[in-house]
Amino acid sequence: MDTWLESVYSDGTDLFVSEPSPAVGDTVKVRLRMYEGAPVRRVLLRYMRNGVEMSARARVVRRERGLVYYEAAMPVTEPRMQYQFYLVGSDGLWFYTQQGVTAYMPDHTCDFVLLADYVQPAWVKEAVFYQIFPERFCNGEPANDVRTGEYTKNGWPTKAMAWTDTPPSFLRGRCLDFYGGDLQGIRQKIPYLKDLGITALYINPIFRAPSVHKYDCVDYFHVDPHFGGDEALAELSAELHANGMRLILDISINHTGADHRWFNRDGTFFPAGEGAYHHPDSPERGYYFFGPGNAYHAWFGNADLPTLNYTSQALRDVIYRAEDSVLKKWLKPPYSIDGWRFDVADTFARNDGVQLADELWPEIRRSIRDTSPQAYILAEDWGDCGPRLQGKEWDSAMNYFGCARPIRQFFGQPDMHLGRDRELRSAPWTMTACQLQARVMQHLAKLPWAIWENQFNLLDSHDASRLHNDPAITPMAYRGAVYFQFILPGAPCIYYGDEAAIDGRLGTNEGCRYPMPWYSDFQKGWMFALYRTMAHLKATHRALSHGGMKFLYADGGVAALARFDGSEAFVAVLSNSEKDERVRLPLGAVGACGLADEDVMGEKLAWRPLDENSVELTVPAGTNYFVPCLMKPKTSRGRRT
Amino acid sequence: MDTWLESVYSDGTDLFVSEPSPAVGDTVKVRLRMYEGAPVRRVLLRYMRNGVEMSARARVVRRERGLVYYEAAMPVTEPRMQYQFYLVGSDGLWFYTQQGVTAYMPDHTCDFVLLADYVQPAWVKEAVFYQIFPERFCNGEPANDVRTGEYTKNGWPTKAMAWTDTPPSFLRGRCLDFYGGDLQGIRQKIPYLKDLGITALYINPIFRAPSVHKYDCVDYFHVDPHFGGDEALAELSAELHANGMRLILDISINHTGADHRWFNRDGTFFPAGEGAYHHPDSPERGYYFFGPGNAYHAWFGNADLPTLNYTSQALRDVIYRAEDSVLKKWLKPPYSIDGWRFDVADTFARNDGVQLADELWPEIRRSIRDTSPQAYILAEDWGDCGPRLQGKEWDSAMNYFGCARPIRQFFGQPDMHLGRDRELRSAPWTMTACQLQARVMQHLAKLPWAIWENQFNLLDSHDASRLHNDPAITPMAYRGAVYFQFILPGAPCIYYGDEAAIDGRLGTNEGCRYPMPWYSDFQKGWMFALYRTMAHLKATHRALSHGGMKFLYADGGVAALARFDGSEAFVAVLSNSEKDERVRLPLGAVGACGLADEDVMGEKLAWRPLDENSVELTVPAGTNYFVPCLMKPKTSRGRRT
Repeated sequence: MDTWLESVYSDGTDLFVSEPSPAVGDTVKVRLRMYEGAPVRRVLLRYMRNGVEMSARARVVRRERGLVYYEAAMPVTEPRMQYQFYLVGSDGLWFYTQQGVTAYMPDHTCDFVLLADYVQPAWVKEAVFYQIFPERFCNGEPANDVRTGEYTKNGWPTKAMAWTDTPPSFLRGRCLDFYGGDLQGIRQKIPYLKDLGITALYINPIFRAPSVHKYDCVDYFHVDPHFGGDEALAELSAELHANGMRLILDISINHTGADHRWFNRDGTFFPAGEGAYHHPDSPERGYYFFGPGNAYHAWFGNADLPTLNYTSQALRDVIYRAEDSVLKKWLKPPYSIDGWRFDVADTFARNDGVQLADELWPEIRRSIRDTSPQAYILAEDWGDCGPRLQGKEWDSAMNYFGCARPIRQFFGQPDMHLGRDRELRSAPWTMTACQLQARVMQHLAKLPWAIWENQFNLLDSHDASRLHNDPAITPMAYRGAVYFQFILPGAPCIYYGDEAAIDGRLGTNEGCRYPMPWYSDFQKGWMFALYRTMAHLKATHRALSHGGMKFLYADGGVAALARFDGSEAFVAVLSNSEKDERVRLPLGAVGACGLADEDVMGEKLAWRPLDENSVELTVPAGTNYFVPCLMKPKTSRGRRT
Repeated sequence: MDTWLESVYSDGTDLFVSEPSPAVGDTVKVRLRMYEGAPVRRVLLRYMRNGVEMSARARVVRRERGLVYYEAAMPVTEPRMQYQFYLVGSDGLWFYTQQGVTAYMPDHTCDFVLLADYVQPAWVKEAVFYQIFPERFCNGEPANDVRTGEYTKNGWPTKAMAWTDTPPSFLRGRCLDFYGGDLQGIRQKIPYLKDLGITALYINPIFRAPSVHKYDCVDYFHVDPHFGGDEALAELSAELHANGMRLILDISINHTGADHRWFNRDGTFFPAGEGAYHHPDSPERGYYFFGPGNAYHAWFGNADLPTLNYTSQALRDVIYRAEDSVLKKWLKPPYSIDGWRFDVADTFARNDGVQLADELWPEIRRSIRDTSPQAYILAEDWGDCGPRLQGKEWDSAMNYFGCARPIRQFFGQPDMHLGRDRELRSAPWTMTACQLQARVMQHLAKLPWAIWENQFNLLDSHDASRLHNDPAITPMAYRGAVYFQFILPGAPCIYYGDEAAIDGRLGTNEGCRYPMPWYSDFQKGWMFALYRTMAHLKATHRALSHGGMKFLYADGGVAALARFDGSEAFVAVLSNSEKDERVRLPLGAVGACGLADEDVMGEKLAWRPLDENSVELTVPAGTNYFVPCLMKPKTSRGRRT
């Protein structure tokens, strides 16, 4: 492929679209850039207008840092504007979409997409999230702790643990071993979080429930008293916002606990006179799926988690439609949360008898956004969910599919989802850099740019073994995974304790929910320094929040991704290679001519210029870098003589 | 890539799916095959069940013609069942979807898709269509001919032409030069069409209208009297059905003519007291888009074609919802047509103010199918319209995107759509075989198999210059294009006159609508023989109607596609190469071990076996073949000793 093709680039940032958030009726200018001197006779913008293919000739409007920018106008006639670029070269015709340059006419699967009349949760792209499993983060108020024996489940009693109790004890406890974490504790740690560079919290469920994890909710309308109750949430939210931080909460609206007020199977929390289970004529009977013999549908057959039935209009009202509904209550003052994370969103409102997901998600989205225009809608889905990421349903999935799964595999693990499958665990899961690129780009290239910027990029979570607990992951590999997480568009999320090199076990969810080791001196460790460095870097460099992203290199065991805007650029270099490799990085494609002498963690780099647009970098075996670029001068007039 | 990977194959035919048209609630068996002896430790079927990824181990169930078949069961829980295959090899993990084998985990874009509770227009896959532009096909009843001066348009009068008048005269006539073709003429030619091998007709608009082409309809409820009126249609339909043939009609429900009874701008056909244009209080006023000063929205600004306004519920009723609506009337006896071709479907119900296409097409589909369960829904769209080909909207587009456009480009033309663009006409449009494969597969791989079988595969039409009129297209290249059309799943369509080597001009629509040259001896020509051979071949070989399809080879200027079932196989070999090439065809992948000594048009082939699963074929420069395969014995017991 001709060298100049490596420089062809456009995206949805304001460097390439005059108005990234247009309204229907606007006309936007769309731009494409490439190396100055590229052998191109014509650049055409091809877009769809009401189903008709239109073409507009793009004209040169700017020459900067060795790159020439072409521009054409596109009338925004629909909420979804799709476009491609055609490049007429002297030696061929080229097509450019989000999947890259092809020599054949591509279909519309990977078109650039500009969403009109779409309100982006614009704060997300600037955020560094921190996920907290609240029972295990910090005990701010011992007076509200769960007592030993306070709850029982299947005959197992609650056990009140001391914060420093050895973690394996609760592995036998079936989520009944309580350490006492609460919202007051989180509030006390706001200064700590700010210092780390955190700008947004994602907190696992906090509504009243008997378990540690609280996905078995008994009352969506109240924060669990052991977490401090509603007032603690209002106080936490106010203090976070006063510190310029955001807060999203986790909820399962797919199912409740069997002890929920609406269901009330066991009479544990609510009077026996209430609830659908014992009272077929109760108003909430229709909220669930009851069958013959009082059998009911439950999540994955778990009888403690009865599935909600959204054929009930009354349920839709109480969950999200009414002004005092569950989802709206917490979006409003004094709680004013900034978004929702939806548990098991992939299976929500779907079973062998009912398929309502396609109808419900747009309704839920409208309810949320009508209440809080920039509220973030984050969904649990481990797979490819591109169709729900088109501006009408979710803003992002928990990005296992395009972040955690590929990067963990790249650094040597079996796929973190499929690896659970006995048949697949022992398969040969080695991954090349090209495969990493293919995995990432097949995810992103189907999404509108505004959605790229919403991506919730994680490495692990309360549902996934912590990457650093895998003894096969070296500190350098871990660093590479974090670099990858931070170079991707969207918001990285640090799972509480990762920065503390928290202990844990592989293979169980309990194993990634250990109490935060406040008693240790983890703030002196390399993982804390790594995350703190990266978080502050993202906060202080616009390219890392508002910039474009491009793979510069992918071959053998080395991949290089750049993040950049018009005035700065960073490159993440990732290697899983067992040998040193020399790689050619076409830095000219991002307006750069060199790399800093050391990366953000102080690693020295060995590189030399190859030509005007590229450098050769020596990547020692398995070494990863995150490095600022040396930019070309903005005006290139001198060079063109 | 390991050789055995070339043999990995599955599709939606009954060789690979125990029930290709299941109901929700069924369990189907899904199969995959590959060479016997392939180094595979495990085959897993991965499918989605209510949003959850499931896996089932596939077991060997059959060994036949050198191929081993793996099978797993899949419960059909949703109307759309998506699946992939994972192959655990000794040296790697492989993933297989409709886009082929990858070494990385693919997204769901190209999953295999089984549609449940979907009624396929099952006759389409067996059909050979013939498109008739009725005014120019055959004059069966001279008494109903349009008279000179009967109509005028913009001051131009109708001209009644003799059938043998030199065609260029009507190029100046703005669709007012009438030759007298009618439905009686078509009926008279049924024996001719049967002999040619035609099983279905697609007839351009026949409802009352002043132009030759009749897209400017004045009355959807009556066949134009110059075409024989309603009675002629009933008679034609009855006689076609008595001969085992099908009939679909063309209609634009996007716009009417300005003379339509509902609009009646000029009072030409209907009394001045009627119509929306002059009567703002008329019931049909809401059928159109009127603005200030009686301005109205018209198709591409053509004031003679006012656009219909589907915000009107009354319009929806009269067009497709009511039992006596336009679409239903003609589907019912005595007309009993077998489907509709929708003109300008890509832009239907879309303009800068209204976007109703996503809502209307599913409604229209339901109306049609409720009336006639196997009615074919064919839509005009020249581009990628994958999202409308998922079982809920169209059965097929006029397959320019996946058939005519790529194959005409492969044989040397500029893209037939983009080539209209002045900026792109002179671009270098050369195409490699790999690009041909990419173009075809990007189209098909996104579609459910049931939709592959619905594809309406054409080379040209009333809107596209005839391929053979291009002097740069050699007879051998033309042959290759027809081979391609006939090897694809779906129905090929012969545009009237192509089999007659009809005269024509490039670059205008008039130039591809010349009168059928019944006066010539075209039935002795090679084009007639070619089409007749191919049509009869398709009728007599199940593999060519119900079989699977696979690219066997694509490199440089040579592509080879196979069509096959469990007992026979054909290969189309296409070359745009300027030199002789020797190509390796892995015939073992379709259960074959050799090729016939000559192809269906009598061309001699030079091939030799290379090994158990492949042969070497010498393809002379620019030579195309359509050739039956020699199959391996069904039981391979003897070989395995």
